Amino acid sequence: MSQRTLWGIGSARAFRVHWALHELGLDYETKPVRTRTPAMETPEFQAVSPRTKIPVFQDGDLKLFESCAIVIYLARTYDSDDCRLLPTDSAGRARCDEWSYFVAMELDGTSLYVIRRHGDLPEIYGEAPAAVDCASEYFIRQIAVPDAEFSDGRPYLLGEQFTTADIFLTSVLTWAIRYGQPVPERLLAYRERTIKRPAYQSAFAACYPEQ
Amino acid sequence: MSQRTLWGIGSARAFRVHWALHELGLDYETKPVRTRTPAMETPEFQAVSPRTKIPVFQDGDLKLFESCAIVIYLARTYDSDDCRLLPTDSAGRARCDEWSYFVAMELDGTSLYVIRRHGDLPEIYGEAPAAVDCASEYFIRQIAVPDAEFSDGRPYLLGEQFTTADIFLTSVLTWAIRYGQPVPERLLAYRERTIKRPAYQSAFAACYPEQ
Repeated sequence: MSQRTLWGIGSARAFRVHWALHELGLDYETKPVRTRTPAMETPEFQAVSPRTKIPVFQDGDLKLFESCAIVIYLARTYDSDDCRLLPTDSAGRARCDEWSYFVAMELDGTSLYVIRRHGDLPEIYGEAPAAVDCASEYFIRQIAVPDAEFSDGRPYLLGEQFTTADIFLTSVLTWAIRYGQPVPERLLAYRERTIKRPAYQSAFAACYPEQ
Repeated sequence: MSQRTLWGIGSARAFRVHWALHELGLDYETKPVRTRTPAMETPEFQAVSPRTKIPVFQDGDLKLFESCAIVIYLARTYDSDDCRLLPTDSAGRARCDEWSYFVAMELDGTSLYVIRRHGDLPEIYGEAPAAVDCASEYFIRQIAVPDAEFSDGRPYLLGEQFTTADIFLTSVLTWAIRYGQPVPERLLAYRERTIKRPAYQSAFAACYPEQ
């Protein structure tokens, strides 16, 4: 049995962790818990995740929540000459954190998550058309910020190196497309590039086994 | 003139950076730009912040956005034996990132920011009562998570050490109180402790000079 266990499949946030694990070539056990299913109610899962959230990641005695924090932990702990998901210089690390928080706050929490709640699942969260419109307009304005980064023809968000920030950006682009938000051409081309990575493909099979 | 310049006063997010700078004992120049004021329209600020957002932080040639990323950059770059805002062990670092993303996503982006937009500034962002109710209920559920951490009597979120995660948590507690959200007793007592820190007090004077 692996010392590493990932609880969670079938969600964009769980997927980020699968992807990082596959990029880094780490073996791990997957517990196929999906959000809003009876698998969340088992005593086994409740013991691991009293917040009843996925993903949860265990590495030996360490148990971690929050997909971005897990991905960054994996990169910091298991980066090697074979695979580096984090810049090694101070300015690069700062830039990587900057994009990670930008994606989390501006594109995910403040925009797409509001659209998810009140545009995609109004029967659970309530109808709030002004909030959905506002989130959608905000998304359009904010998505121009990463789009501008690619004007110099770089392959990845930070340049030549594929980093944790690309995992986060790609995952919100997928979400944006699914929610019918307009994504600029250059970012669609970027996403085509990132999802062709072998680690993306094998992680996808692990996270979405039915597809 | 200092090599470090912080653009932004009068906002909770700018305050986080002032606070970290004061904790670390770093000198810096403050540019007193406030959100939604003509100071944001000057060519000088527009050149630094094409996104017209505060805070922006400059350290020599490095220019950074996103308050959480700036605070973590400062801690990583300027931590010393005199002041450590980040744990030095791997599990502690992971825990610190976990709380930082938790506060950013669950308490700020998904809860308080929605309340700010549609509860506090509906004349700008539109009325969306279902979104405000939903965000408020979500806040109440999520605030129980950090509250539970303090059941062992620890002074700070990660234990004995005051960290960047405390800067983030304190700032959202202040915001929650201002928005009339219920904050558990234990977290109110925690906030009383963190805002008594000398660095908080001097940072407050720098960020809110009129108060």
